[in-house]
Amino acid sequence: MQLEFLGTGAGSPGKFRNVTSTALRLLDERNEVWLFDVGEGTQHQILRTTLKPRKITKIFITHLHGDHIFGLPGLLSSRSFQGGDEPLTIYGPKGVRDFVMTALRVSGTRLSYPLNFEELTDGGVIFEDATFKVSCQKLEHRIATFGYRVEEADHPGELQAEKLKAMDIPSGPVYGQLKAGQTVTLPDGRTINGQDFLAAPQAGRTVAILGDTRQTPNALVLAQDADVLVHESTFGKDEGKLAHNYYHSTSTQAAQIAKKAGVKQLLLTHISARYTGKLSKELQKQAQAVFKNTKVVRDFDIIDVPFQK
Amino acid sequence: MQLEFLGTGAGSPGKFRNVTSTALRLLDERNEVWLFDVGEGTQHQILRTTLKPRKITKIFITHLHGDHIFGLPGLLSSRSFQGGDEPLTIYGPKGVRDFVMTALRVSGTRLSYPLNFEELTDGGVIFEDATFKVSCQKLEHRIATFGYRVEEADHPGELQAEKLKAMDIPSGPVYGQLKAGQTVTLPDGRTINGQDFLAAPQAGRTVAILGDTRQTPNALVLAQDADVLVHESTFGKDEGKLAHNYYHSTSTQAAQIAKKAGVKQLLLTHISARYTGKLSKELQKQAQAVFKNTKVVRDFDIIDVPFQK
Ligand SMILES: [Zn+2]
Ligand SMILES: [Zn+2]
Repeated sequence: MQLEFLGTGAGSPGKFRNVTSTALRLLDERNEVWLFDVGEGTQHQILRTTLKPRKITKIFITHLHGDHIFGLPGLLSSRSFQGGDEPLTIYGPKGVRDFVMTALRVSGTRLSYPLNFEELTDGGVIFEDATFKVSCQKLEHRIATFGYRVEEADHPGELQAEKLKAMDIPSGPVYGQLKAGQTVTLPDGRTINGQDFLAAPQAGRTVAILGDTRQTPNALVLAQDADVLVHESTFGKDEGKLAHNYYHSTSTQAAQIAKKAGVKQLLLTHISARYTGKLSKELQKQAQAVFKNTKVVRDFDIIDVPFQK
Repeated sequence: MQLEFLGTGAGSPGKFRNVTSTALRLLDERNEVWLFDVGEGTQHQILRTTLKPRKITKIFITHLHGDHIFGLPGLLSSRSFQGGDEPLTIYGPKGVRDFVMTALRVSGTRLSYPLNFEELTDGGVIFEDATFKVSCQKLEHRIATFGYRVEEADHPGELQAEKLKAMDIPSGPVYGQLKAGQTVTLPDGRTINGQDFLAAPQAGRTVAILGDTRQTPNALVLAQDADVLVHESTFGKDEGKLAHNYYHSTSTQAAQIAKKAGVKQLLLTHISARYTGKLSKELQKQAQAVFKNTKVVRDFDIIDVPFQK
């Protein structure tokens, strides 16, 4: 599980940062990639990575501002052109379907795969299967905006085969039952509880990816105990009033959320063109004064989301 | 007057050619830039040039396929963000207004300038003022497609002031009347016809920019005697059947149009990813066998459109 940043700028594309898109690489976990926002030129950025558009199966849109959605029609078209045939689902505020379907209709684009929409109206769980759960919460950004929380299910502990072999239990189908935690009676009459031979389960990882937002309690709900929090930092420490008026956050506010929520790592994105080059390090320092494990990400950064030991 | 190529690829963006957009730089002539098609990422390409979005006053769309229009909403937004306030008019097939207005509405974008649409239904003159005339003709490309012809008015000849001075006619307001070709009676009684003191007028220049098309007589109508013809070349010499079936043209077909129409220069664009690097030179050679003054253009090429001597 890695986060790959395809666009880390705010508002308009710049020479060094494209408009917003963040990929959650779940290649080992599901052989899938999930995208969060698709600013214009996201497909161009993907051309410079190892990501395959056909592996993108879910797209989560935080809000409908142009710098977060204008790359959708092109990406969807190219995924089709490149032979994608797996279904793709777009989650986002009401209006995302209208935008995408108008673009596809007017351009005469016929996709090679089923395209589904889940338009969000309120917070809650929006996807769940055996290994992953995604929930969303409303944030505050002038137009309807959602943040997302992706939770991986715990990985069951490994079967401790050496212990079993030391007890002269021969390997075979019975190992599968024990690994599943079942209680088994052996041919020799012994009764073995699989639970006693499993290592501790490995806690699943949690990533919170918030859209543009000013300070709001729901940010904490999404970020609680996350391994990684991706938060916008459109403004610097001393621009709290500007941030509030423009429905954005400062570096320090993002760090305060990270600290209160007890996250492991904070990644700052949505960096204004006013903070180019070394100035973006200022944002990072400001945040680090509150929450040490902070990084201002750049386009094409890949950040691993490790298991906690 | 120069053509600046912002995207010269076909269908999907590639590493070396972006999807279609061509700028006609009329900076000396009108302090304006006109764009022909706006594929996704056109605003990103513009960032790498000296073009200013606020100087773009007219956008001509050849057809509504995604690789020709998906950059429109982002470009319009950035033009606004960068303080453009001059009106902008978009010419194109029916549907372009629906696409743009849906994108702006859904994204909550309010432009800082008046945006007008001229949806085209048939060929004819679509713009004309004292110095420029633009006409369009239907081409053949599965969906409604137009090619454009831009004609500069002739420049009146310069006033030959030396001749007047040799005749002891003192400079003053009378020179302005003579320059306008009027007949003037001097205080000393002489009658002077301005027409006799004007150099030969300089013929205006003509540029024809065609969209995606297969062979159709209207291409000739647009290209007739043009100084520069910009023509697609999606396929190579031996792919005439493919070109026809996919509503595109071959290098050789484009050259035949150039020859028949008596143009001065042929610029080939809309180059398929199958013709990367040196292979694009093949397309050029094929066309040059029919029409010598041919060039396959690349992204960021700037081609001057000179006056004919
Ligand atoms: Zn934004
Ligand atoms: Zn095309």
